[in-house]
Amino acid sequence: MTKPAHNLPASEFATRVKGLVAFQAGHALDAVFVSTDINRYYFTGLEASNGVLLLASAPTFYTDFRYLLVARKCVSFMAVKRVWRQVDEQETLAAMGKKWRRVGYEGTISAARFEALRKALPQVEWMDVATAISEMRSVKSLAEQSVLRHAVRANGNVFASVREQLCAGMREWDVRNMLRREMDAVGQGEAFDTIVCAGKNSAECHHHPDETVIRKGQPVLIDMGVKLDYYCSDMTRSFCMGPPPPFYREIYRIVSEAQRKAIRGIRPGRRCADIDALARRHIEKAGYGDYFGHSLGHSLGLEVHETPNFAPTCKTVLKPGMTLTVEPGIYLPGRFGIRIEDVILVTSNGCEVL
Amino acid sequence: MTKPAHNLPASEFATRVKGLVAFQAGHALDAVFVSTDINRYYFTGLEASNGVLLLASAPTFYTDFRYLLVARKCVSFMAVKRVWRQVDEQETLAAMGKKWRRVGYEGTISAARFEALRKALPQVEWMDVATAISEMRSVKSLAEQSVLRHAVRANGNVFASVREQLCAGMREWDVRNMLRREMDAVGQGEAFDTIVCAGKNSAECHHHPDETVIRKGQPVLIDMGVKLDYYCSDMTRSFCMGPPPPFYREIYRIVSEAQRKAIRGIRPGRRCADIDALARRHIEKAGYGDYFGHSLGHSLGLEVHETPNFAPTCKTVLKPGMTLTVEPGIYLPGRFGIRIEDVILVTSNGCEVL
Repeated sequence: MTKPAHNLPASEFATRVKGLVAFQAGHALDAVFVSTDINRYYFTGLEASNGVLLLASAPTFYTDFRYLLVARKCVSFMAVKRVWRQVDEQETLAAMGKKWRRVGYEGTISAARFEALRKALPQVEWMDVATAISEMRSVKSLAEQSVLRHAVRANGNVFASVREQLCAGMREWDVRNMLRREMDAVGQGEAFDTIVCAGKNSAECHHHPDETVIRKGQPVLIDMGVKLDYYCSDMTRSFCMGPPPPFYREIYRIVSEAQRKAIRGIRPGRRCADIDALARRHIEKAGYGDYFGHSLGHSLGLEVHETPNFAPTCKTVLKPGMTLTVEPGIYLPGRFGIRIEDVILVTSNGCEVL
Repeated sequence: MTKPAHNLPASEFATRVKGLVAFQAGHALDAVFVSTDINRYYFTGLEASNGVLLLASAPTFYTDFRYLLVARKCVSFMAVKRVWRQVDEQETLAAMGKKWRRVGYEGTISAARFEALRKALPQVEWMDVATAISEMRSVKSLAEQSVLRHAVRANGNVFASVREQLCAGMREWDVRNMLRREMDAVGQGEAFDTIVCAGKNSAECHHHPDETVIRKGQPVLIDMGVKLDYYCSDMTRSFCMGPPPPFYREIYRIVSEAQRKAIRGIRPGRRCADIDALARRHIEKAGYGDYFGHSLGHSLGLEVHETPNFAPTCKTVLKPGMTLTVEPGIYLPGRFGIRIEDVILVTSNGCEVL
């Protein structure tokens, strides 16, 4: 049953590198330097903690001793060279980039590393390409959509299985362990630390599961995501251990309606902030605006939090192939919290709930 | 049996903040800005994905809506204020820091975030304090040493238990899952992705477990670490599924001697690079210098890779309370690899193998 992550075909990664080369040409960049973990994986298909994809005259992947053998097997569509260690990065680049004038870098590298790059290539004008790469990553290919669909379904199945086994008397931590064990069995485990909240802990929004015992009748909130073949799912379910009291049902209805309104509004061409507003206005009108303190949702893919976001400040226009969560919530301190979260795929004329 | 992570007592975190305040005074910094995940945890004891510890006239912890309730419970030894979102960080700081001249920041924040800070406070002279914080973290308190000792022992127990159950015919992935399940049962699971390599995969050094079947007589390499109460352990064992052939035994002997030589040499006052050299020279003399391509070891604590390192380039002088791995290896491509890794604690006159 259990299995390690499988890569998409090498052609998928080769296409991404081609896209980045086109971006490089379009922006007249002498070189592009990609070194953060997830972007490195996105372009090479190699899971490693070190390595630099350098687009200069031709794309080349540099990595150190530890990953060289596996890189040569896995990154077959470009040159793979030893060695790139951060300690001699400055020297290597200084020697290589004497004639470079404009270079792309990821603004997500550390401030210290960027300072070192600037020192190595003082003549260079630097362009932050992290946002451009995030934009490439935000639109998922058909192959990626298929993996994400599997991940989301697997996540739903794990929840359903554990929900059946759930009973009063269990501790939050026990439930988290059950979930985690089942997530290991269908994919590569948790995409993020599973949240299990009993009773008023659910109002904490990002409570860490502890030894709190789930009691009969209590509200429960579970936020979980299976990772499958490198892609993340994310889902939240809120429910009571027994028949929910009227006030809980009332709040649940408001959150659920807010989610439905947002989902109905999603289609290519609309701004992310507008979708956030659909849910937010509904919750505000019901009188609970102060108790919905986070954004409506976030993109997900190789990472559980990607861009764009369904946030009041996000002006990104939706495109087919984007995958985002829709997760309105109402948190009443000292009482309980309710969040309902599903993943949607933007289609050509609306969206599909995965 | 299973349990969530427990924090050290609040006094431990309060002491660390005091240490940082002393550093601030010693370097005449008007403010210090700490926002990376692990350092935030190190000073507050709060596990969160957002929040800024700001040392200005007094230490204050800012966090957003999601973590506010739990922060007020957990970070009792300083003021906790809502809200710090990266989107309004620039405005908040610009308003707050009009009179600041010298400010400490972590060079490990993203280049983009640092650019934003510089724009918000154009008059400020910035000092990278990441190294200073790493130095604070590198010397473990007695309480930390005790947690680390438990984590290392738990790790050893998990390995011993799984070693007994190991048999030919299992896939690398099955073994990884067994290890992970047992790690979940004693602590908070894996400190990093467990490495299980069968046969020539062990020469890949950082091979990811896959569906390779472990066969009778084959070499196996397992690199694993339990996380316990937020602290990481790390251990590598190399062995054969049956009596090892003479050549394997010969290489094992060289690696093991290299490790022993290094461990015997560890004591306060020596440089990290000198310890690396003790093992490296031994492997070089035996004729395998080209097959030991990584550093001898790394510090560990809240993170599995901390500083200083037993690396040829690391000039840090050892101090009592530092905890590092000692992990020489020889990797023969297409044949097998052997690495032996243990964690040591630098004591007042030598070291203790945890």
